[in-house]
Amino acid sequence: MSPVWWSLIPLFFFLQAPHLCNGGKTSTYVRKGEPAEELSVESFPPPQGYNAPEQVHITQGDHEGRGVIISWVTPEEKHPNWVRYWKASVQGSNGKEAATPIKRRRSFAYSSSVYKFYTYTSGFIHHAVIKDLEFNTTYKYEVGNGNVNRQFSFTTPPKPGPDVPYTFGIIGDLGQTKASNQTLEHYVANPKGQTMLFIGDLSYADDHPNHNNVKWDTWGRFIEKSAAYQPWIWTAGNHELDYAPYLGETIPFKPYMERFHVPYTESQSTSPLWYSIKRASAYIIVLSSYSAYGKYTPQYSWLEQELPKVNRSETPWLFVLVHSPWYNSNNYHYMEGETMRVQFEPWFVKHKVDIVFAGHVHSYERSERVSNIAYNITNGKSYPKRDLSAPIYITIGDGGNIEGIADNFSIPQPDYSAYREASFGHAVLEIKNRSHAYYTWHRNQDDAAVAGDATWIYNRYWLPLDESRHH
Amino acid sequence: MSPVWWSLIPLFFFLQAPHLCNGGKTSTYVRKGEPAEELSVESFPPPQGYNAPEQVHITQGDHEGRGVIISWVTPEEKHPNWVRYWKASVQGSNGKEAATPIKRRRSFAYSSSVYKFYTYTSGFIHHAVIKDLEFNTTYKYEVGNGNVNRQFSFTTPPKPGPDVPYTFGIIGDLGQTKASNQTLEHYVANPKGQTMLFIGDLSYADDHPNHNNVKWDTWGRFIEKSAAYQPWIWTAGNHELDYAPYLGETIPFKPYMERFHVPYTESQSTSPLWYSIKRASAYIIVLSSYSAYGKYTPQYSWLEQELPKVNRSETPWLFVLVHSPWYNSNNYHYMEGETMRVQFEPWFVKHKVDIVFAGHVHSYERSERVSNIAYNITNGKSYPKRDLSAPIYITIGDGGNIEGIADNFSIPQPDYSAYREASFGHAVLEIKNRSHAYYTWHRNQDDAAVAGDATWIYNRYWLPLDESRHH
Repeated sequence: MSPVWWSLIPLFFFLQAPHLCNGGKTSTYVRKGEPAEELSVESFPPPQGYNAPEQVHITQGDHEGRGVIISWVTPEEKHPNWVRYWKASVQGSNGKEAATPIKRRRSFAYSSSVYKFYTYTSGFIHHAVIKDLEFNTTYKYEVGNGNVNRQFSFTTPPKPGPDVPYTFGIIGDLGQTKASNQTLEHYVANPKGQTMLFIGDLSYADDHPNHNNVKWDTWGRFIEKSAAYQPWIWTAGNHELDYAPYLGETIPFKPYMERFHVPYTESQSTSPLWYSIKRASAYIIVLSSYSAYGKYTPQYSWLEQELPKVNRSETPWLFVLVHSPWYNSNNYHYMEGETMRVQFEPWFVKHKVDIVFAGHVHSYERSERVSNIAYNITNGKSYPKRDLSAPIYITIGDGGNIEGIADNFSIPQPDYSAYREASFGHAVLEIKNRSHAYYTWHRNQDDAAVAGDATWIYNRYWLPLDESRHH
Repeated sequence: MSPVWWSLIPLFFFLQAPHLCNGGKTSTYVRKGEPAEELSVESFPPPQGYNAPEQVHITQGDHEGRGVIISWVTPEEKHPNWVRYWKASVQGSNGKEAATPIKRRRSFAYSSSVYKFYTYTSGFIHHAVIKDLEFNTTYKYEVGNGNVNRQFSFTTPPKPGPDVPYTFGIIGDLGQTKASNQTLEHYVANPKGQTMLFIGDLSYADDHPNHNNVKWDTWGRFIEKSAAYQPWIWTAGNHELDYAPYLGETIPFKPYMERFHVPYTESQSTSPLWYSIKRASAYIIVLSSYSAYGKYTPQYSWLEQELPKVNRSETPWLFVLVHSPWYNSNNYHYMEGETMRVQFEPWFVKHKVDIVFAGHVHSYERSERVSNIAYNITNGKSYPKRDLSAPIYITIGDGGNIEGIADNFSIPQPDYSAYREASFGHAVLEIKNRSHAYYTWHRNQDDAAVAGDATWIYNRYWLPLDESRHH
């Protein structure tokens, strides 16, 4: 792919002054009556057979994309605590796998543990890491031993590079309702998504009596149809806190951190709640809205050192995942992200983050490129202004959980809000090259091919123009 | 004491409109040349004798003031791990203790532990708690066994009540320099202080190579002359984080939490970094600038439940201790407290906190009563306004540590700043009754009797007038 054509575009648009065009749209789409009805535990049966491995899910296992963490649960016994994996053969002309011998390897879980939460005791939760895989290659893997063997597969990403096309799915606040199932089925039916960016709030177990942790198990079964086949990149939301002093449960994020491992040490983080990965042409930074971020704290210190490490010539696209949105014009959770925004927003503008994905609010919203960083405590200059160095903020907490839709948008729509709609759905981000990505949001009640919201996104490092004028 | 006279005062002043009088004063006091020179390890020798107990300090041990936590270190052996205590006798006419038998009790340490930090290994750190003491009573206590016995004493506070006079000392950012020693000697020489409110940043061990934890030991010896005889109420500062991934030390606050216990469970907190106590006529809430405080987090949830519990008819005075200041007009650490301010300030105004004490900035500043809570992200109304329901913010990080003075005040002095001076010192707050307290700040280079800053403070619940007009 030639890098020449896109480098000329700035000449045409360079002199356009930034502005706010007051063109924000509040969708008039009216959802069909669709209660966020919780699916029963029986809707998510475990696989058949004694001690059958279940809740299989994968995530990236290193910083570059050559590693995978495979996680599963064995409900009755600790063993088998290993996973077998091999490179999928090229198909022979007869449509079957080639007959050449396949080298199978075995990886033992580096962690196999049981946790308790109030009166609940988990199964044996296993996490195995496989590293040094080949880029851009399909692998098969199998968990189980003897009677019940379950086989899955995944494809490693291409080696990080500036013009590597890659497509991410984005879902937040999923839960396990009929609407959640629509969202996930919708995503799975769309063949484009290669890796899921999950923006926090997973099972909503804490909405049930005593934070019924069985809901964590059913959720693990629910997402397996996608998460066993492509990495889900995890962000912690408020529903992962599971902080319940009245139950004697006072360790924040306990079930979440037991069940969902991430490669945080690979990015020199000291907590699984914040970390980074490279994947194809993207650099993805995950932050925690519900951990400390004041100056000098571990998360602050890590992010301060992390942002300058991003090499936009290797990974042009810089995304941040954080659960609580900084720009949200819904009255639900209004300004809850403000305390983190005032701390980190200047860094995001300085380092030209392309997109910040947040969840938390159960509707959909996309912002203009704005920043609000001119303020000092005496000058009163605290309002969002158009800023072409600023990220687009996308709030996509619309996975469809038990708490229902957030349909209480502030009126009038503020200038910083470009598009908003109270529907459930998911998004797809197709990176085309270093300068262009195509972003679509799909409401559950449309066909997968229909985009409820769609926009080209220009890379802030390579093409820092106002894409809202060039649709 | 009659409650009638102060109840009439509001009639005279009720109609006065709040205003900012632009009368903030930047002190013209010029400090003598006084480098914040670190005192050597040899300046703080351990007590003589094999395994002599050292670093003795006490803090409140329950919620009401009838309990004491006594902490000490035995350098060579774990034993003795108990403390003996008894009620001090009334003096006989001959000036000696009465000859009546004294009932001595023994309290075993509930915690005796050793910690490691990089290459450092601590002595045996003991914490014993004594509860159900009599109010307003002097007790003696002794640690040691056999050859080396060391005796100290403390006086319990009066039972909480609305018009109980009580006097607090206030010190922040103390360290262990010549200036630190001046500050502490100054405080000890003033007989008024009954309990120390310590606003964080204790030993500054982390300013030394590998966070030299010997400096924690020397600091424990340094403060014993006060902290073994009256409770020091502890707040964690940034220098307590001791977060050093390059040394393999990644647990925030480890040395601090090993050495300084607080009665956090007594106020239903789940972390020693935030908690509350009652003491005489005061309710004291300690917060952590360097822990999570976003909505739903443990600290947020605790404070949300805590503030409505304060009964101003029992404890009229409500103070908050937090290390990083919210209103600071020094260019050092400017606006570092902003992220916490936007989260909690509306609660402080609603619940009429009387004074917020902060440290962190190595100079002295006292604010007007201001709030900055009218803002929403689109209205631009973000500036401090006079508010008679708001606390006074006192920044007193001027204990005199190795990092030196913060002498870079912003010019002009903002309206919210009432008095500021780049000197080292300490403060004393004398609660007189439910409506009045007299507050003085003492710079190290004056006699203890001289006040560098002094003001009457009116209680926000019982006398919510503008005290800045009534000097």
